Amino acid sequence: MLELAFSLSLNSESKVPHYKQLYLFIRQEIQAGHIKAGTKLPSIRALSDALNISKTTTEEAYQQLIAEGYIVSKARVGYFSLPPEDAFTDAPASTRTKPSSVAPLSNRSIEIDFHPARVDGNHFPRTLFKKLSNDVWNTYDNTLLDYGDAFGEWGLRKTLADYLHHARGVRCTPHQIIIGSGIQYSIGVLIELLQSDETVVGMEDPGYDKVLSAFRRAGVAVRPIALDSDGIDIEQLRKSDANLVYVTPSHQFPQGMVMPYSKRMQLLQWAKESGSFIIEDDYDGEFRYGERPIPSLQGLDANDAVIYIGTFSKSLSPSMRVNYMVLPPSLVEQFAARRHEWDSPVSRHHQLVLQAFMEQGHWERHVRRLRRGYRSKQAVLIQVIQAEMGERAIIVGQGAGLHVVLDVNTDKSRETLKERAESVGVNVYFVASAYSQEPTATVRVVLGFGGLSPDDLVEGIKRLRTCWFSR
Amino acid sequence: MLELAFSLSLNSESKVPHYKQLYLFIRQEIQAGHIKAGTKLPSIRALSDALNISKTTTEEAYQQLIAEGYIVSKARVGYFSLPPEDAFTDAPASTRTKPSSVAPLSNRSIEIDFHPARVDGNHFPRTLFKKLSNDVWNTYDNTLLDYGDAFGEWGLRKTLADYLHHARGVRCTPHQIIIGSGIQYSIGVLIELLQSDETVVGMEDPGYDKVLSAFRRAGVAVRPIALDSDGIDIEQLRKSDANLVYVTPSHQFPQGMVMPYSKRMQLLQWAKESGSFIIEDDYDGEFRYGERPIPSLQGLDANDAVIYIGTFSKSLSPSMRVNYMVLPPSLVEQFAARRHEWDSPVSRHHQLVLQAFMEQGHWERHVRRLRRGYRSKQAVLIQVIQAEMGERAIIVGQGAGLHVVLDVNTDKSRETLKERAESVGVNVYFVASAYSQEPTATVRVVLGFGGLSPDDLVEGIKRLRTCWFSR
Repeated sequence: MLELAFSLSLNSESKVPHYKQLYLFIRQEIQAGHIKAGTKLPSIRALSDALNISKTTTEEAYQQLIAEGYIVSKARVGYFSLPPEDAFTDAPASTRTKPSSVAPLSNRSIEIDFHPARVDGNHFPRTLFKKLSNDVWNTYDNTLLDYGDAFGEWGLRKTLADYLHHARGVRCTPHQIIIGSGIQYSIGVLIELLQSDETVVGMEDPGYDKVLSAFRRAGVAVRPIALDSDGIDIEQLRKSDANLVYVTPSHQFPQGMVMPYSKRMQLLQWAKESGSFIIEDDYDGEFRYGERPIPSLQGLDANDAVIYIGTFSKSLSPSMRVNYMVLPPSLVEQFAARRHEWDSPVSRHHQLVLQAFMEQGHWERHVRRLRRGYRSKQAVLIQVIQAEMGERAIIVGQGAGLHVVLDVNTDKSRETLKERAESVGVNVYFVASAYSQEPTATVRVVLGFGGLSPDDLVEGIKRLRTCWFSR
Repeated sequence: MLELAFSLSLNSESKVPHYKQLYLFIRQEIQAGHIKAGTKLPSIRALSDALNISKTTTEEAYQQLIAEGYIVSKARVGYFSLPPEDAFTDAPASTRTKPSSVAPLSNRSIEIDFHPARVDGNHFPRTLFKKLSNDVWNTYDNTLLDYGDAFGEWGLRKTLADYLHHARGVRCTPHQIIIGSGIQYSIGVLIELLQSDETVVGMEDPGYDKVLSAFRRAGVAVRPIALDSDGIDIEQLRKSDANLVYVTPSHQFPQGMVMPYSKRMQLLQWAKESGSFIIEDDYDGEFRYGERPIPSLQGLDANDAVIYIGTFSKSLSPSMRVNYMVLPPSLVEQFAARRHEWDSPVSRHHQLVLQAFMEQGHWERHVRRLRRGYRSKQAVLIQVIQAEMGERAIIVGQGAGLHVVLDVNTDKSRETLKERAESVGVNVYFVASAYSQEPTATVRVVLGFGGLSPDDLVEGIKRLRTCWFSR
């Protein structure tokens, strides 16, 4: 094993820190089979001495490898490599046993990452957030430090109700709003409020895998419902035994179509007739380019059948962990009656900062600015795809949100496309049915543009063209 | 109904804001039956004019009443009162259908609140937190705005592992730690990792109701296990079919006893023999006064059977929503393999602030300072109880944590004690079995002292003596 130490020379000029170079090297050696499973690795001291780096650096590399399942530490014996197929993360797509509809943010040697959940950090109002954060610390007394309301902060709910009414047509009072830490929390609360072993949820197929897994983990029966060209297939939904449905009408995730008014009314009719609830996930409802937005399902509904869910993740940052859910009155009552069973998982400080951000008018200015930025990025991306790929790729979803969907005409497998993209430093993601086999002949690719600059978008597509079509 | 408006005159000298005076008045009238269910209330405009207050003020009062289920708004018709037993919160204890082991933080007309989950906000290092918060905004690049690791921030986990080792004897590496948003999140993750329909959890009786309800809501079978004088009854646990147990060995919640070394070893032996896991909730392990702390169960365990849970709620603030869980390696592997199913619910910004707080040595200084403060508050409380109540009350749990337990010799019911305390502006909480009937002859009271000043502690006990023993 000491060859390992000597055949690696760390590059001090690189922006990649030493621990990561070391970690990447060992990981690659294990993945390539050059380090066989069960090999004892050099001790931290020996390797640090050999490479002339600090023990902390070596330790960090080993810890990362342990965390990801490439090596294991045996007390008082040392470090041993594991079979690469046992690794938890960063495995190439081909070795994943269960492909997710969107692969995880993982590979760190990637330069251009088309992940659909990345947002544009350059637009984040950092200075303002610092100021508002300090204002909150300076303004509120020590009750700020106590447990908060299970529903969330009243002031944030009040300003959200106003905003949702005029921006998304949502009709609600603040006491219908529950602030949460993300869609998984909201779905978890809902499942408990519905309180029925007989809940059967219809899910768009393909759809959002994190929501699918939240339902499955809670033991709720799931029925995949296919998509028409304009959204969920209402006929198939009618024929199913679903008594709850999860939809993304503003911008279907991941396919990107917008549900038209007529289909919205059919869906509401289904809910009314079958006595079902509809979960409307308006995850990027702020980002509609071009036509006037269609009002939310919640706003069109006259029967209190819609549960509306929105988030600050797309328009500000997912790292704060703040979203919101608007419940129909019957479910509000249940939550209120059982409110002492839940502790809100959301930072009260962040809620108060967001409240000030919205109340002072920054929020709507910020969303307008972002919308302009994203609209122009989307235009750049579509243009370069058309210019570079021509008829070899068809753009399917556009006009909204932070990603476009591309049907790539190719006889290559998804795994091949993924590997070739990675070989040129680009990460792409795929639309896959979480339930059934996907069709062949074309591969459906999801390209998130939120977190990339226009230059990266152009460069990324050029690289993809080269590696996908030129060999 | 217009009598309502005129018989109320708002007190402008009071520290209680107008909307709250109005809300309290109407609530009391509904509770007392003076406003019958179904009565139409004055419109916001009419009431505001009559009382010479702004419409916003009246609206706030009405919204609070709506949120709590005292009144209901009917679109285009007006506001109507509901039967008081329908109210969601703030109902007097006697009307609650399901008494919780600790009643909720609710009544807002209370001046001295012995709630056991309140902490001393005066010790909170606000200035330092402002500075560290700004440092985080200034230091990290835009990747701070992306989704974080499902395990939590690596740096925080690293510094926590060090701290837990030397302060609580916990033996773990950072990759065994999962940062969470509170005990309910941690328990939720655990239930999913155990992944068995056959999980049967033994719970201390009386015990922590929020954990009980998390298990029940997830459909896990619960077995109440009685307490000996020194903690959970091991014999009863052995005889039960539990294959998981939840305990609070550092300071039993709510009774306050400390589990001695011998019982810890018996509990570990039970886990080893039965192949069970132990959940050790070290919720206030920082606050031990007097004797040297006994090491955590986790640190005494040689069989990877202990899941250790700790929190920043007691030593900093529950409003940030940050806790942590140390998993045995087998469960770490499962979480790692399924990490993409979970989005961490915890603010990354707060995690990085806490990391800096700990790395820079502030944490341990802060805990030492708090411990001194709480120790002296506990001494004040015990002294005033003994001086004022003499033999009419016996102090049961002491020596640790943020609350003491008091056995009050009385023939009065818990409800009477609660009502009398409220009538003098004091809120107290009760230990009740969440499963079975409590014994009579004495009433067991929980007095949290964390959030009260020494003066309030003295004043509160004096008021309790007067209202409980002098009539």
